[in-house]
Amino acid sequence: MAAVFEYLVRFVDEDGNIVYGNMSEPKTVEDLVGTQLPLLTGDPYNGFKLANKSAVVQKFKVPSQPVVFPKPADAIAGPSDDVYCHPDARSQLDYEGELCFIFGRDCKDVKENEAFDYVLGYTIGNDISARNYIPQEVSGGQMGYGKSFDGFAPFGPYIVSKEVVGDPHNLQLVTSVNGEIRQNENTSDMVWNIKQIIAHLTRGRTVRAGTVCMTGTPSGVGWFMHPEGFVRDGDIMEVSIERLGTLKNRIVY
Amino acid sequence: MAAVFEYLVRFVDEDGNIVYGNMSEPKTVEDLVGTQLPLLTGDPYNGFKLANKSAVVQKFKVPSQPVVFPKPADAIAGPSDDVYCHPDARSQLDYEGELCFIFGRDCKDVKENEAFDYVLGYTIGNDISARNYIPQEVSGGQMGYGKSFDGFAPFGPYIVSKEVVGDPHNLQLVTSVNGEIRQNENTSDMVWNIKQIIAHLTRGRTVRAGTVCMTGTPSGVGWFMHPEGFVRDGDIMEVSIERLGTLKNRIVY
Repeated sequence: MAAVFEYLVRFVDEDGNIVYGNMSEPKTVEDLVGTQLPLLTGDPYNGFKLANKSAVVQKFKVPSQPVVFPKPADAIAGPSDDVYCHPDARSQLDYEGELCFIFGRDCKDVKENEAFDYVLGYTIGNDISARNYIPQEVSGGQMGYGKSFDGFAPFGPYIVSKEVVGDPHNLQLVTSVNGEIRQNENTSDMVWNIKQIIAHLTRGRTVRAGTVCMTGTPSGVGWFMHPEGFVRDGDIMEVSIERLGTLKNRIVY
Repeated sequence: MAAVFEYLVRFVDEDGNIVYGNMSEPKTVEDLVGTQLPLLTGDPYNGFKLANKSAVVQKFKVPSQPVVFPKPADAIAGPSDDVYCHPDARSQLDYEGELCFIFGRDCKDVKENEAFDYVLGYTIGNDISARNYIPQEVSGGQMGYGKSFDGFAPFGPYIVSKEVVGDPHNLQLVTSVNGEIRQNENTSDMVWNIKQIIAHLTRGRTVRAGTVCMTGTPSGVGWFMHPEGFVRDGDIMEVSIERLGTLKNRIVY
């Protein structure tokens, strides 16, 4: 069966509508604006089909500020714990290797230029995610719910001081599943840097010492692989970040 | 200036696209399916214009499960506290009067038929919301951020035991701003009942005793008024629920 799309892109057309289009070969975001693309109907959850019409790429929708959602304290798991996967979370279970920082002091309305005064140190996190709870029609698009099962936030293996780490935006991150590398990028690619995240997280609100902030994951999650690369009973996820060690957890049913 | 729309409706068309249409007079959801409606382009944040095309209403998108997002503990305010509004939250500040219940025991994987065993009692909440942080292009559509400023979760004036309240789904809720009634509905109109909410909130995850659950707000928030009915410095919000008393808070800049 021929693929319905080759390179799927979501963009804003000339009328201001958010639409899906197909590229026959990859282009940069800069090159894409102003290009005419064939449109697809549907969505990632129900499938796509070609629409027999096209539209000009006006712009891309990237949120103007860091996207924030929580994981509750009971989601924490240790750096070598098995993670039990609830039956309702098994159909599209995914990993997200992430650089994390820990707040060392209570704070509120922190300015970017003083942000690192509030950082205790860094660690590795795996933002385990039940993707079946992400869609708008299931959760209203709220990302926290499917990521908040008990055990879905393994951290560790230790907190490395900011003095030892130095620049947090120059660390290689590698995630593997059963030894196969899935994510391999540098923290220099983060959309928002840690200063910006801290300023946003503390806007008009108190953040307590001990709060762990996961900073987002690079490309390579199972959800966007072809075919999909979700994790299952017995699979071992390992996230390694330069200078921070390795976080290794097994999924169990 | 003529209104761009009379009764705005968001629906799924025959091609599976989510679109906005206009009705010239209100119809029930049942009557709307199969009806052809003129389309609008745009969105609620950037405005609409008529599109010179139409589409047939196929169905409506309502999330299949309760929509869940958090407010942090530091958002709590007392039942007569002034609520300080951070400068970044002032442009579209809104109220949401809500029935709340409090978990009385730690729990996990609670079945609907045992849900009320875990309820300590009921109170009133005001889910204060900075609507400028709701749009997809600002927050990725995550609803928690704009509702998590310190003080944006007033509760009270007391916790009423479940024995005194009886049926929580038969209580009149009235919200007023400076004495003008804005919301006036019965908790029998809730989309999800409390048993369903508890089963969903505890799926595969631990919820701790003392957790307050706000159950959602009825129609009448300032965001959807014409013209918009946002609250400002000095405005007094009062939420009253039958048998639970009145929660009264003033916004201060």
